[in-house]
Order: sequence, then C-alpha cells, then structure tokens
Amino acid sequence: MWALRAAQGQLRPRRGPPRDVALRAAFSSSRPAAGGAAGVPALVYAHHGEPLKVIELKNLELRPLGKSDVRVKMLAAPVNPADINMIQGTYSIIPELPAVGGNEGVGQVLEVGGAVTGLKPGDWVIPADSALGTWRTEAVINEEALVGVPSDIPLLCAATLSVNPCTAYRMLSDFEQLRPGDSVIQNAANSGVGQAVIQIAAALGLRTINVVRDRPDLQKLTDRLKGLGAEYVFTEDAMRRPEMKEFFKNFPRPQLALNCVGGKSSTELMRHLGHGGTMVTYGGMAKQPVTASASSFIFKDIKLRGFWMSQWKRDRGTDQFKEMILTLCDFIRRGQLTAPTCSEIPLQDYRVALEASMKPFISSKQILTM
Amino acid sequence: MWALRAAQGQLRPRRGPPRDVALRAAFSSSRPAAGGAAGVPALVYAHHGEPLKVIELKNLELRPLGKSDVRVKMLAAPVNPADINMIQGTYSIIPELPAVGGNEGVGQVLEVGGAVTGLKPGDWVIPADSALGTWRTEAVINEEALVGVPSDIPLLCAATLSVNPCTAYRMLSDFEQLRPGDSVIQNAANSGVGQAVIQIAAALGLRTINVVRDRPDLQKLTDRLKGLGAEYVFTEDAMRRPEMKEFFKNFPRPQLALNCVGGKSSTELMRHLGHGGTMVTYGGMAKQPVTASASSFIFKDIKLRGFWMSQWKRDRGTDQFKEMILTLCDFIRRGQLTAPTCSEIPLQDYRVALEASMKPFISSKQILTM
Repeated sequence: MWALRAAQGQLRPRRGPPRDVALRAAFSSSRPAAGGAAGVPALVYAHHGEPLKVIELKNLELRPLGKSDVRVKMLAAPVNPADINMIQGTYSIIPELPAVGGNEGVGQVLEVGGAVTGLKPGDWVIPADSALGTWRTEAVINEEALVGVPSDIPLLCAATLSVNPCTAYRMLSDFEQLRPGDSVIQNAANSGVGQAVIQIAAALGLRTINVVRDRPDLQKLTDRLKGLGAEYVFTEDAMRRPEMKEFFKNFPRPQLALNCVGGKSSTELMRHLGHGGTMVTYGGMAKQPVTASASSFIFKDIKLRGFWMSQWKRDRGTDQFKEMILTLCDFIRRGQLTAPTCSEIPLQDYRVALEASMKPFISSKQILTM
Repeated sequence: MWALRAAQGQLRPRRGPPRDVALRAAFSSSRPAAGGAAGVPALVYAHHGEPLKVIELKNLELRPLGKSDVRVKMLAAPVNPADINMIQGTYSIIPELPAVGGNEGVGQVLEVGGAVTGLKPGDWVIPADSALGTWRTEAVINEEALVGVPSDIPLLCAATLSVNPCTAYRMLSDFEQLRPGDSVIQNAANSGVGQAVIQIAAALGLRTINVVRDRPDLQKLTDRLKGLGAEYVFTEDAMRRPEMKEFFKNFPRPQLALNCVGGKSSTELMRHLGHGGTMVTYGGMAKQPVTASASSFIFKDIKLRGFWMSQWKRDRGTDQFKEMILTLCDFIRRGQLTAPTCSEIPLQDYRVALEASMKPFISSKQILTM
C-alpha cells in the first residue's frame, strides 16, 4: 500500500547470492567487519512471524563509515506495538528482510563522516523515520536518517520521545482548535500515547476524560494516571452508564476524542463528543471497525479522522519534526512530560522484553538497554 | 437534539384553548380569515405518523399582513424525503403541531407590508430555512423567512432549488479542493441530490462515478444519468467486483465520495476513495451505519464528514445562501443544471404525490402545484 522509503542504515541482503546465503554472510559472527572490528549484536528477523519465534540475537558487521554517515552507539530502545506488528508482517511498513527490529530509541554519536555537519561525537540522536532498526548496540547510519536531541533530558525520555509524545502532541494540536479549559476524551488512556496525552494536555491547560479497561488494580492505575494530570478516569463500562449524562451537565463536552481501540469503545467516545467535534483514530486495539450512524455525521456534524506519526513526518519533513522535538524537550525540562513507566531490560534478555510487551494490561514499557 | 428556530409563517396552536380546540378553530373552513377573505387550502398534520394517514387538506385562515410580512401565492412545492420524515416525526427538526407540510417550493409575492424593502409584488421567493410549510396555496410570511429568486428560470427549477442543488453544490465545494479532471464518486446517484451532483460536477469539469441500485430499467436510468453528464454509472454489485481494480488503473481515484446510503454501499465508496480523501454522508437510506477500519483512518488517511443544508444555512446566514442561489441560477441559465424529472400533481391530489414519493425506485420527483 505504501511505498517504503528505505531507511538508511537498514539491513539489506547483498546482491548476487540468494537471500538465505546473503543472510548467513551478512550475519556471520565469525566474519570480522571491515576494518577488523568484531560484529555488533543486533536483534534480527529474516522472516515475518511471532517475534519470539523469528527474532534472533546475531552479531552483525558494520558497514564502513561513508562521508555522510554517522557511527552511533545505541543507548536504549523501546519495544512498541508497531515494532511487534512490523515483525509479524501486519504493519503498513514492511522493511526488506532480513531486518533489525525496533523503530525508536536513542543513541550517541561515536564518529562522523567527513561531510557530516549537523552532528558531532557525543551528540544524542533519535531516528528521523520508521524502520531504522534500533535494537542493536551500534550502527552506521546516514546523517539524514537521524535527528539530534538535547542530552540534558533523561535517557528514558529521549528513548521514547519520537513516537508516543509526538503522536500525542500532534493529535492535541492539529485537529481541533482547543483552548485552556476545553476538554479531551481518550480511550486506552494507559497506553504510551495515552499517558503522553494526559501530560501534554495538562501542560496546555486542557481537561482530560480518560477511559481504561476494567482490571484488578484499577484504583492503582487511576491514581497513577491522576498523578500524571488526568482529571477523570472511567472504565469502559462506566462510560455506558446513564450517570454519564449527569456528568456532562457539569463538564464541558469534548471537541476532540482520541481513539486507539475502535469497536464499542469508539462508539462511546463519539457519543460523548460535542457537536462538530472530531474523533481521531490512531490505533485499533480491539480489531473492530469504527462505526457511526448517518445522523451523527449529518445532524451532530462529527468528523472522523486518522493520524499516523510516520506519515506526518514524511509529509512535513525533518525541520518541523525537530521543532516539535524541542517543544517536547521543554515540557520534559519543566517536569510536565515524563517517560512512561518503564522496565529496562538488557538487549541480550530481549525474550523477556518481547514476552512482557505482548501481555494484556501491561502497564510498563519494555526498554532494551545496550 | 436541535433547538428549532421556529420558522416564521409556521402554523401554531393558539394560546388559551386546549390544542385540539385550537386546531379546530385554526383550520375551520367555515370561519373567514381576517379581512373577510375565504380560507386558503393547505396540507396540514396535527399528529406525527404515516403521511397518508395524518395529512389532511384543510382551509386555513391567513393571519393579517404585518409591516414586515409578505403575502405569497405558492406556485409549486416538491415532496422531499425530509418532508416525509418530518411528518413521521423522525427528522431532526420537528415543528410545533399542527403544522403545514413541505420545506421547499417557490411562490410569488402578492402583497408586502409597509416595512418590507427587499421584496415587491411579482417577485419569486423560496424559503430561507426549513419547516416553512410550503404545501399550501397562500401564506403570510415574515420577509426574513424568504429569499428572492430570479423569475427567468423554469418554475420547476425554482421549486426544487433550495435543497438538492444547494446540497450538491456545497458538498462539491466545501470538503476537498477539486480541480477540473478530478473525480467524484457517489451512491444514490439517481436521487435529487445525485442528479444535481452529476450536473454541477460536469459543469465544474469534474468526472463522476455514479453508483445506483440494480433495477429492471437499469439501461434507461443509465442513459438518463449519462444524458445529465454522468461519466460512469455502476450498480452496487458491480462496485464489488474485482474488475473495479482494473477500472481504477485508467481512472483517477476520487478524493471525494458522497454517501446518501450508508452500510455496505458506503464501505464500497470508501474502498475506492484515494489516499487522504473525504467521504461526506448526507443521508442514510439503508438505515445502516457507516463502518470504517482503523487502518483506513490511520494508513489511508480517509476523512469522514457529514453535511446538512439546514445547518449550513444557519451557520452561514442568508447572504451566503443568496449568493449560492445566484450561482446556481447561472448554471440553470447556461443549461448546465435542470430540474430533476418531475411529476406535477395538483395540491388537492396530494395523496397521489405522497404515495408515489414513498415508492422504491421512484425516478420522478413529485411536485405539488397550486
């Protein structure tokens, strides 16, 4: 569906020999990389499938540093749902195989090519686009595939900055003109994006209604989200109760709804949306479509839209992306935006991280550390 | 859901006596109107229900001409689906009962009050808003509830101008920036709006894909729509066939889809919509909701919107409405926009018109003439 702009630094089969031969050659741990350096560990998949079955820890040779290249030591990289879907082959971007897993993360520049002007050794960098392959200890990457990020923010913030907080910030900024005191409703409020929405909304003076699935430790989750700045936390079931009508007698109807679930959950968001409001879909966790009556379009004038950070970056370019990163770093420095609750897992224990990231009701983001 | 701005000239029960007594008084054919004139025939309903059961032809007294009023002789008024829904009580605007039926039509000014400056005897007028009650031979109406329309266009064009061609024109203008050569896809292409879309699109240099339900006289219908300017006419079934993929190899993907049906039909429209395109829902004939996958929002960036002409008029006001009417009259004078196929039925034979308007596959709009 999508023309994939191949990310620089991405692993490719060599021309000439058949793919499996190329794979063996490219990943041979016994073959020293050019320059005599030993291979660098990376989480690689040669076929699509369940991550625990297809992901392997391999030693990978680094390509020689070209004049526009940057050698980067990866510091930390999260396991996001999109990473899992990409490995499963169900995501909209499918890199050429074999590929290194991971779309997000932060690294430190070790060495730069002669023509590199925007980065220098010691700088922190994050991927400019999807499919960079961040689950490895080191990589040689074209400068254009990277964006510098201030190194005075916490490492886990930098490692988780380029997808979820950006998605949250754009969705709060680009669809409805919201002013302090206005409200926003979202489901999957405990997701990485959800937590970023709560914090950025609070920083912008917006009031949030946060919907989560019922669970054994609901009070603990509610307290944690309120600690981040959530004004109200409701379960999906509570949203369907008649009391919600009373609630909205004293609370402004949201003009913006953020939907990561679909199905009945999105129907509830739309039901509570104000006249002329927008629901933005950025995920489909329930694997059920979004359904809306003709009258909600005609008489309530609801607008249904979608958002995908990767596409936004492609449409808007790196300069606007960098500008947003700096804005988000300001939130971080002011203590208004923190990293999600994280579990740091060493790269070689990746099976623990993959397994944990696919469990339901996971409240902690798995971060691979190198 | 909606605060109804009571249309001036609308029938109201008098204060004081109970409603049924007021009704009898207001509609008594034996009671002469103020000034000694006889009552004027009107199609009235005192209760919501099936139009053939609740609509009655009554003689109605005219209220005295106020200084801001206009006395209008109605010339022609169509029977639209919204009129039927309003009588059934299922529309979003419910006038106070008893009420005169009909939302659209053209009349001629007979007499104006002392403070009326924008209209004079002989002028043609159409309603500025919904629920005017156009199914009557004569009415006294506040000037602000009327909009003048040039009288050099065909009567049937004027009688059917304020709803369907306006809806078609706005939907083609307000949602996507279309340029000559771009394409538009619509279902219910044979509806009043559908025919106006075909003609206005052709006048603007837009190419249309028109979807209709299969029917016995399909070829005749196809020929008629092509005669209006339709480039392609497909049945709902044909849209689901794999050949459509071939079709779009040589035809630009539409960026705008106009949906009057919902359910599966709208799913097909969305499937053929180009990346980033908009589907505008303005009707729900199938009584099935619009359903869209999360991925169509996220990865295909489709936008789902709604349109309702009554709301547009309220939001934009009479001046912009008048401006559009003049633009549409230009299309009419150039022969680019004609009235839909009509059957003219005298007001007293309203039962024939109501019955015909509710039949499936009706290809002719029923116009009551006075």
